[in-house]
Amino acid sequence: MANSKFEYVKDFEQPDILLPSTWIVVRIDGRGFHKLSDHYQFTKPNDRRALDLMNAAAVEVMKELPDLCIAYGVSDEFSFVFHPSCQLFERRSAKLVTTIVSTFTAYYIHKWTEYFPSMPLHPPYLPSFDGRAVVYPSNGLLRDYMSWRQVDCHINNLYNTTFWMMVLKGGMSNTDAEQELKGTVSGDKNEILFKRFGINYNNEEEIYKKGSVLYRQFELQEPKSQEEEKDGTAVPEGKQSRSQQDKLRKLRRKAQVVVDHVDIIKDDFWERRPWILSGKPGKLPA
Amino acid sequence: MANSKFEYVKDFEQPDILLPSTWIVVRIDGRGFHKLSDHYQFTKPNDRRALDLMNAAAVEVMKELPDLCIAYGVSDEFSFVFHPSCQLFERRSAKLVTTIVSTFTAYYIHKWTEYFPSMPLHPPYLPSFDGRAVVYPSNGLLRDYMSWRQVDCHINNLYNTTFWMMVLKGGMSNTDAEQELKGTVSGDKNEILFKRFGINYNNEEEIYKKGSVLYRQFELQEPKSQEEEKDGTAVPEGKQSRSQQDKLRKLRRKAQVVVDHVDIIKDDFWERRPWILSGKPGKLPA
Amino acid sequence: MANSKFEYVKDFEQPDILLPSTWIVVRIDGRGFHKLSDHYQFTKPNDRRALDLMNAAAVEVMKELPDLCIAYGVSDEFSFVFHPSCQLFERRSAKLVTTIVSTFTAYYIHKWTEYFPSMPLHPPYLPSFDGRAVVYPSNGLLRDYMSWRQVDCHINNLYNTTFWMMVLKGGMSNTDAEQELKGTVSGDKNEILFKRFGINYNNEEEIYKKGSVLYRQFELQEPKSQEEEKDGTAVPEGKQSRSQQDKLRKLRRKAQVVVDHVDIIKDDFWERRPWILSGKPGKLPA
Amino acid sequence: MANSKFEYVKDFEQPDILLPSTWIVVRIDGRGFHKLSDHYQFTKPNDRRALDLMNAAAVEVMKELPDLCIAYGVSDEFSFVFHPSCQLFERRSAKLVTTIVSTFTAYYIHKWTEYFPSMPLHPPYLPSFDGRAVVYPSNGLLRDYMSWRQVDCHINNLYNTTFWMMVLKGGMSNTDAEQELKGTVSGDKNEILFKRFGINYNNEEEIYKKGSVLYRQFELQEPKSQEEEKDGTAVPEGKQSRSQQDKLRKLRRKAQVVVDHVDIIKDDFWERRPWILSGKPGKLPA
Repeated sequence: MANSKFEYVKDFEQPDILLPSTWIVVRIDGRGFHKLSDHYQFTKPNDRRALDLMNAAAVEVMKELPDLCIAYGVSDEFSFVFHPSCQLFERRSAKLVTTIVSTFTAYYIHKWTEYFPSMPLHPPYLPSFDGRAVVYPSNGLLRDYMSWRQVDCHINNLYNTTFWMMVLKGGMSNTDAEQELKGTVSGDKNEILFKRFGINYNNEEEIYKKGSVLYRQFELQEPKSQEEEKDGTAVPEGKQSRSQQDKLRKLRRKAQVVVDHVDIIKDDFWERRPWILSGKPGKLPA
Repeated sequence: MANSKFEYVKDFEQPDILLPSTWIVVRIDGRGFHKLSDHYQFTKPNDRRALDLMNAAAVEVMKELPDLCIAYGVSDEFSFVFHPSCQLFERRSAKLVTTIVSTFTAYYIHKWTEYFPSMPLHPPYLPSFDGRAVVYPSNGLLRDYMSWRQVDCHINNLYNTTFWMMVLKGGMSNTDAEQELKGTVSGDKNEILFKRFGINYNNEEEIYKKGSVLYRQFELQEPKSQEEEKDGTAVPEGKQSRSQQDKLRKLRRKAQVVVDHVDIIKDDFWERRPWILSGKPGKLPA
Repeated sequence: MANSKFEYVKDFEQPDILLPSTWIVVRIDGRGFHKLSDHYQFTKPNDRRALDLMNAAAVEVMKELPDLCIAYGVSDEFSFVFHPSCQLFERRSAKLVTTIVSTFTAYYIHKWTEYFPSMPLHPPYLPSFDGRAVVYPSNGLLRDYMSWRQVDCHINNLYNTTFWMMVLKGGMSNTDAEQELKGTVSGDKNEILFKRFGINYNNEEEIYKKGSVLYRQFELQEPKSQEEEKDGTAVPEGKQSRSQQDKLRKLRRKAQVVVDHVDIIKDDFWERRPWILSGKPGKLPA
Repeated sequence: MANSKFEYVKDFEQPDILLPSTWIVVRIDGRGFHKLSDHYQFTKPNDRRALDLMNAAAVEVMKELPDLCIAYGVSDEFSFVFHPSCQLFERRSAKLVTTIVSTFTAYYIHKWTEYFPSMPLHPPYLPSFDGRAVVYPSNGLLRDYMSWRQVDCHINNLYNTTFWMMVLKGGMSNTDAEQELKGTVSGDKNEILFKRFGINYNNEEEIYKKGSVLYRQFELQEPKSQEEEKDGTAVPEGKQSRSQQDKLRKLRRKAQVVVDHVDIIKDDFWERRPWILSGKPGKLPA
């Protein structure tokens, strides 16, 4: 309704529409969570309550934005993925990123007391997150992105598990533990864990080793042969109509969002859940 | 520490550094606040508690980010302004916008019960905000941006005040009130308010008429003559060193952030507070 | 070597790197060629010399930039295509576009007298071209882009052929011909051509009906079955090393650039020339 | 007129509108001019014919684009400057840059024989240029950009003059001359020139020492006092109407484009020619 001679300043807004027909990944990261996790005394190397709170907030984001196909979380970061056919907010980057960051923050703060009942939040130690959008032009690239995050999760968790064992159980100083771990490979760390602390890393909890995968649950499929698979995951050309999009959105809303801790690097995960890459909702489980 | 063959996917992140030596305005807007304000029964046309909560959250944002020069809020929106010399986060757009959106959201949720003690927040009605960054190349353009928002505040508030009087006091239906107001000018609305409801719009509260201006409080200056003013507000060329920036940041942190409801369209506001446009902190008040 | 206190102004250059792993299409267009073609008395509806000159200039661009996979020209426009794996100029948009525009212009001007010996160029009627880069995330999208240009060629040429017959042979005014053609479909135009002027549009020259396709000539392949084809054209992930790129560049330089006037909408063209979509040079013809 | 199901590919074009109210500098550079100048035997350290050809091409660009305020050339590069109020091509970056690059190339090739009558152009040694656009938010920054180029000109020319004297007159090898000049300052080079070759650098031709400044000639003004100057050069806010722009364009077309070799670092040049920074054409000289 409002109109004035100053309105011309709107022309300075520059468009930020993300390239059509590409995967959009919005990754958010906790700001200053090192300090924050000390302040609220998060358990080392992993605080189960903190991870569950991250996942709970991410589930709500998935529910509010049915356009999201999959999300992956580890430590204080979460990646949310929109399908190449997604038209939400006309694919405007700032709109997509800020909506996710703000919704996530809102639920994280709101649900805090549920997960940390004896540790009330108080300024200036309020958790907050920053975020960015990146686009990937093919299914293969998206899967490499997801693999990158899960490999990172593994590498960091093996390091942190070993480091904190050496410090908390082994009585070493932080500096000494760091020094000893410098230049070691996975095998070395597995050996330290096993020989000094009787820990078999393989028996650690999946949520710590694999991170958390969130997606909508439809009926699982038999893994397809490779040729079919290639077909099934092709990025669609052209543009979906608004009513098609609304229909798909409704179907996705009906599916439950599940939190899984499984391998997403190998083909099996994707072949059994073809709806993630295809963007076409599957059959609801009985 | 983590390294893998998948790391190449990082190359797909595209730079989003905002043009140097320009004013950066980050404007955030409440998402779906129409529905939300109904749900939590905000008073019409203005809910003082809601505005105070917006301002309280914005004050915290200003405190956390001393690089911010000024902020202006009205209704469910807030504009935060960084100086042309600002180097925060290397001026990366997504980083600046998401940090502000997330910090604001965190405080808004955290402080909610303080302002709405009898109205607890609950999903799916959690407040959230989206945001965007726009740059302005000169002081004149920044001032036109600020004027645009304040004129908008005035136009909207006059309309809303009249509309809700006609509905709440006048017993009209929403549609009838809307119909009657169509095509009216300011004078018409002032007359409706005065003749039908005995209200002199000029006597309405300043916070509703002018919105809220937040800035750091230094000693006010005598308005300068025009030539001096031009000098004082020139956008500086070149780049500040990191240590200069840190020093300025410390000085700004010491100043109190105040919430004001004053005219920011005329020169007087800016001439008395030269530190806002110059980016050079003034003298702390005694 | 040069260094000065003013060098900071370089920081204002903003990066313009095109998204990795996407097809880059640089399309150039003649500036003011309507006026220009009148001035130099181009034959209507098609001037063979002008098209041959366009193609000659484009062949030189292909030779100078072995990273180019294919080019397509029609009327006063030309589209040049770089492969998703292309790293030329670090994929900087302005650098790619201006290099093509300038090289094309240089050859167009230089070769002019060869094609228009009796019609010397003179200012202010010097031909020039503008250009832009667009990226496409998949092979399917690139092929749709190429199809778009070729369908456009067909539609425009059928119209122009009919229009100019009506004017030049039929003695109609431009306005009358335009008026009569308004709202007609292909069938109508074919009929006008045949009934009034005894012209079977199918017998028109291929260069006019199909435009010009430029590519490097390797040994043609048998069209593959669909599954293999899908494999063969997959956009490669990851990044080629600089030495790999140099090697491919050398192989491409050895191939002859040919000018063809064939259908590029159907699969056949692409299946017989798999090196275009794969980016892997084929075997040189004996 | 043309329409097809493939037309959706147009949606992949991304907007590239340059920020309003900023100076636009388009700088073009000769591609591979080192090799080219060897091939066509350019005189060292400066070839007057080559510089005159650059300037002649640039003058034509200025004439074709009356929106250009000023241009500065040195060696094989040229910077063309559009005023903050310029709306040409809706300020689309690729359109502005390619138009300048292509027009410049066209004239450079076309006029070559006029400047190098005995040295005909021939492939693959056809001159071409690349280019880029950069925006500057204030008059001060634009002047610093221009100063940067002119300081560069001076530093490079002093070096080249000394180097080629040592080689051509002094009989030194390229490597020896380079070695001796490493680490020297201006004073050292002036001394070498004077002591060994009897050359007073100050007496060298202005075109080599200062580069070439192109602008439209209106009546020179008395240098203003500083306060007035500040007023006169302020970047205008708001947007000019199309008819205003057309009118200004016509006035600019009437002015002669002159080629000057003068200092553009100090204030004097700009104060006497206020139309350059103000964008308002002056009075035509009698």
